Amino acid sequence: MTQRKYLDSIGEIDRLELIATRIRLNAIENITKSKVGHPGGSLSIADILAVLYFGKTYDPQSGMWENILRYDPADPLWPDRDRFVLSKGHAAPALYATLAEAGYFSKDLLKIFRKIDSPLEGHPAMYRVFNEDGKTVEHGTKGVDFSTGSLGHGLSAAAGMALHAKVYGYDYHVYALLGDGDLQEGMTWEACLTIPNKKLNNVCAFIDYNRLQVDGCTDNINQLDPLDEKFKAFNWDVRVIGGHDFYAIVDSLDEFKRTRAERNKPLVIIANTVKGKGVVDCENVCSFHAVPLNMQEYERAEKEFVARIEQLEKEIAARAPAHVKLKPLLKTLSREKEQDLLEVIRKNPAQPYTEPLATRLGYGNALARLGEYHKIFVLNADLAAPCGTTKFIEKYPEDAPEPSRRRSINLGVQEANMMTMGAGIASCGKIPVVNSFGIFSTGRAWEMVRQDISYPRLNVKIIGSHTGSALGEYGVSHQAIEDVGCMRVLPNLVIIEPSDPFQADLLFEKVLQHEGPVYFRVGRNPTPLVYSDNNGYGVAPIRSFEIGKGYKIKEGKDLTLICSGPILAEALKVRERVRESVGIIDMPTIRPIDGAIIEEAAKETGWICTVQDHFENGGLRDEVLQLIVAKQLRVRCDYVALAGFAESGSQADLYEKYGLSARRIIQKLGLHIK
Amino acid sequence: MTQRKYLDSIGEIDRLELIATRIRLNAIENITKSKVGHPGGSLSIADILAVLYFGKTYDPQSGMWENILRYDPADPLWPDRDRFVLSKGHAAPALYATLAEAGYFSKDLLKIFRKIDSPLEGHPAMYRVFNEDGKTVEHGTKGVDFSTGSLGHGLSAAAGMALHAKVYGYDYHVYALLGDGDLQEGMTWEACLTIPNKKLNNVCAFIDYNRLQVDGCTDNINQLDPLDEKFKAFNWDVRVIGGHDFYAIVDSLDEFKRTRAERNKPLVIIANTVKGKGVVDCENVCSFHAVPLNMQEYERAEKEFVARIEQLEKEIAARAPAHVKLKPLLKTLSREKEQDLLEVIRKNPAQPYTEPLATRLGYGNALARLGEYHKIFVLNADLAAPCGTTKFIEKYPEDAPEPSRRRSINLGVQEANMMTMGAGIASCGKIPVVNSFGIFSTGRAWEMVRQDISYPRLNVKIIGSHTGSALGEYGVSHQAIEDVGCMRVLPNLVIIEPSDPFQADLLFEKVLQHEGPVYFRVGRNPTPLVYSDNNGYGVAPIRSFEIGKGYKIKEGKDLTLICSGPILAEALKVRERVRESVGIIDMPTIRPIDGAIIEEAAKETGWICTVQDHFENGGLRDEVLQLIVAKQLRVRCDYVALAGFAESGSQADLYEKYGLSARRIIQKLGLHIK
Repeated sequence: MTQRKYLDSIGEIDRLELIATRIRLNAIENITKSKVGHPGGSLSIADILAVLYFGKTYDPQSGMWENILRYDPADPLWPDRDRFVLSKGHAAPALYATLAEAGYFSKDLLKIFRKIDSPLEGHPAMYRVFNEDGKTVEHGTKGVDFSTGSLGHGLSAAAGMALHAKVYGYDYHVYALLGDGDLQEGMTWEACLTIPNKKLNNVCAFIDYNRLQVDGCTDNINQLDPLDEKFKAFNWDVRVIGGHDFYAIVDSLDEFKRTRAERNKPLVIIANTVKGKGVVDCENVCSFHAVPLNMQEYERAEKEFVARIEQLEKEIAARAPAHVKLKPLLKTLSREKEQDLLEVIRKNPAQPYTEPLATRLGYGNALARLGEYHKIFVLNADLAAPCGTTKFIEKYPEDAPEPSRRRSINLGVQEANMMTMGAGIASCGKIPVVNSFGIFSTGRAWEMVRQDISYPRLNVKIIGSHTGSALGEYGVSHQAIEDVGCMRVLPNLVIIEPSDPFQADLLFEKVLQHEGPVYFRVGRNPTPLVYSDNNGYGVAPIRSFEIGKGYKIKEGKDLTLICSGPILAEALKVRERVRESVGIIDMPTIRPIDGAIIEEAAKETGWICTVQDHFENGGLRDEVLQLIVAKQLRVRCDYVALAGFAESGSQADLYEKYGLSARRIIQKLGLHIK
Repeated sequence: MTQRKYLDSIGEIDRLELIATRIRLNAIENITKSKVGHPGGSLSIADILAVLYFGKTYDPQSGMWENILRYDPADPLWPDRDRFVLSKGHAAPALYATLAEAGYFSKDLLKIFRKIDSPLEGHPAMYRVFNEDGKTVEHGTKGVDFSTGSLGHGLSAAAGMALHAKVYGYDYHVYALLGDGDLQEGMTWEACLTIPNKKLNNVCAFIDYNRLQVDGCTDNINQLDPLDEKFKAFNWDVRVIGGHDFYAIVDSLDEFKRTRAERNKPLVIIANTVKGKGVVDCENVCSFHAVPLNMQEYERAEKEFVARIEQLEKEIAARAPAHVKLKPLLKTLSREKEQDLLEVIRKNPAQPYTEPLATRLGYGNALARLGEYHKIFVLNADLAAPCGTTKFIEKYPEDAPEPSRRRSINLGVQEANMMTMGAGIASCGKIPVVNSFGIFSTGRAWEMVRQDISYPRLNVKIIGSHTGSALGEYGVSHQAIEDVGCMRVLPNLVIIEPSDPFQADLLFEKVLQHEGPVYFRVGRNPTPLVYSDNNGYGVAPIRSFEIGKGYKIKEGKDLTLICSGPILAEALKVRERVRESVGIIDMPTIRPIDGAIIEEAAKETGWICTVQDHFENGGLRDEVLQLIVAKQLRVRCDYVALAGFAESGSQADLYEKYGLSARRIIQKLGLHIK
């Protein structure tokens, strides 16, 4: 209780209770009046939020006080601010009330919680400023550092932010607030494993342990005890406190900040709380998880809160004003040296390719040659070498002596945590490149891509390697045939699949220049060179590729094959073997698709066929069909794609059996062999 | 060491070592000769597999011996068999060698490991027998109880199988074998939390703790110690043993089986193993994770293995034959009373609806009225009430006095574990109905649906509730707008979205009758009645709906709106308000789509428009476009869909703002108001 006498000396506890009471009152007012929202879990965290945002700790050495959370409501994107992630996003009303109290926005906004056109979403949406068509567009809520709502994500986002601080030299802290439900999600335990192992001692996690969830008592549904033992076994420092005990909350946070230098572990504060705290009708009543108070209940609660507020204000006013010397907020704590990506690209041009190589390795070359660009951060989940990231990692290993060179991390087999850590890093302005096999990066982590990257449009580059049935012998569990479709149902994402290693290398330059999420699909097996000098296909060499552009590499009169990725080589074989005049379009960008080139081809040949090594639904084929129909193009339109799961076997055997070989394409389209 | 003297008395250890050596030899032979596969992790588990499949324990009371794993190679689908799940599926070569040794199939098959048309997939594919077009089709590998390959799934599948045993009165045990990588995946910790909490004492998990993974040492990447403490804190019984110590393996398993009656916890056996065990070149060498031995290395290993085999065979032959009295394998241990689903449906017809109701509650009514059908098992993840399952659960609660009535479970917030537990239950022949909001059941658990349900075509019914922007105030994090697309990229799945509660109720009957995976999409808000008597739309009542059939509920001359789900009500409003003659097709089955009715409409009206409350890519629109283009229908084709994420707000406000309201549909299509 180091802080107790200091806190008492300035009447701090009364002040915190006053703020917490206002937060509670505002939260339930908004929930009740907007007739939607989660009162129980908002009320249980009000005291923790009050301390975090308004609490102060005393530094006996300097004789000065310091705010616990470092933030500036006038500058919500201040790079040096401490971060706060509300993993239990449904408690948004409490967070919004806190942010309004802190001055991020007017309390009037609280009245339009969950209404159309309101910046206060049902679940927190992170504050972002985009440049859209030359206009500056704001999205989300000022003061919200990360979008949440889907449980289990928050601690991973916090881990990403904390890692960012370590590598890029920021001294901010990251606070995450989790609920019982978060702890039933495995993703939380991925982060729990990772955070101490990666020595992220700048993370402090609160558990709002109120033991109630939507369907009843956590203890009956899937109980969490002994929770402290769990965290200890996951190598965290653990404090168990009363979650409504202001002294204990301040004390824990004071200890966290004070001991930072010597601590090598993160801290979890298990706060035993009461769901619905402060509203008699709500306390420990499960049904108030997501059901607003009725007017009568609300008015009773309001009366009590108002009375308490008046009483506290009176007591505070009656007391002699405290002499509090606050440490000034240093607005410029750290400055990063900005680099010019274009300059890095100019200095490190792609080298010519002379041998077939997998597109994953072409991508890996780009990563390595442009690796000096400081914003690039590479994440892996135990497939670093297969994904082509080895060369980058050799230069920028996670155990480099200089922290600034530690621009890679390997998390082991935990794609969900990896993806959201990537999003956390992106939320700090860097460019995380997240690697795994396509089935895992787009599938295992689909919901993380969706909630944490696609929705807030964070600048994450998602690599899917070993894609398609071309993966071969690994079999169905590892062959991503739905990845293009899975990413194509997500708004805001660019989807790219290079067809040869040189193109992969060159296109990845553009991927880095593009501000926003990209899915980059690469393959495992060596791929013939199509764009190099003397490529053997008679294709004119190309030295620069653009996102959103298709490339007509062969003219045709009878039919145009529109191809995505390395299967282009099969299309080129088709052309060589048949009597028909077959045009070939390489379409490395699946979205946004190059409509003009398709339209032109349709008009020229009157017959097009999409060729893809992925499932027949949801991918390139569907993208092209939308265009054909929208433009009402009069064209015969066929497709070559997988009709279902393949199996284990060599790429050649699988292509032949599942209809992707040149021979089978010729057969399907009824073309005539020369 | 209770078993040691008995084991010694019959020369058991030599016999087990002999088998383990054969398994090792066969495994590496196949990997080397097929030039693909994972030698390291196959070698580390050979001893555990040998004991499980061939070990015996002695029962002093009866004086008889019993095989540790209960199985019958001639009857791989025997309902009473013990289950074995190889969560670290990349060690398939060791499993296949074991299964061949056990007599499930000829050792000759091992030679075509990972080759095309082989039943031995790169990662294990569960053995299934389908009835396809009147033919019996086998899929997968005899003896494989569950498909694996993607890490982290195995323990959840085991949990489902174990739960099945408890509820349906089977006394089999479930063994799962996990690797280091499995333990970095959060999903494993979901299962770790659940298994003891749900008292699944029939689960025994082995950890093959060899401390190496693809990219290096687990201890460097994301280390797991103190692993025993982790499991203890998750309430497991823990034994830590040497993973190549036959006595210790037998002992642990003997204890597991012997103490079953009094034990109320599952057992985890942390087996400290050596990756690459038995092959000098491989031992503790990380690079042999997924790289075969070269011929020279292989031949050296082969020589050593063969020598050891010969030596052991000699020693065994020299010894006096042991007098081993084996307990006979009782082939009929349990018989379930089969019910006739059609009879249950006949006895419990759907009741008429008179008031608007959410489709989720129509579905819930079907679940409750047909709940007596014993195969139905309902899984929830803390959204039981919102998903409409309350009535069923009241009748079949997980704490019912009679185990057979415990046909529901609530797992808390862990959708991944829930989905794969469902798959585990389905693998035992039951019909799990897995509930969550659509964003979580199709998104959070996408990869589980894919690997564990879509690929093996397991009979799981996946419910997605609160779908579409119609969810309203919850906001983007909870509005599933990609769920249809996410499920449509998966082979083998039926996708259904009923448009009114009565239809939901009736269609769910058909869903239960359909053998195979179904995604059933329902909504949160009350939906007007379209098919009831006096429905106000002048629609002829319909009393029975079919999967795969569209319903033309309004004839039109100028335009046909093709609708999926409750948004049908907006389409009906359009028709009433405009001067054009607008036909309406209700398309509750999105896949397989009713092609005939679309073709007919295209010909009749020459203009169709799909109307969907989901994202514009990947869903109903794309499904219809495929048909339009394939049939080369000359038709104008428009669409009404979400162009991106919506926001929080009322359904009415969102429909208006995001283009799904009748007014906006009229505007988009340029129709003329009456």
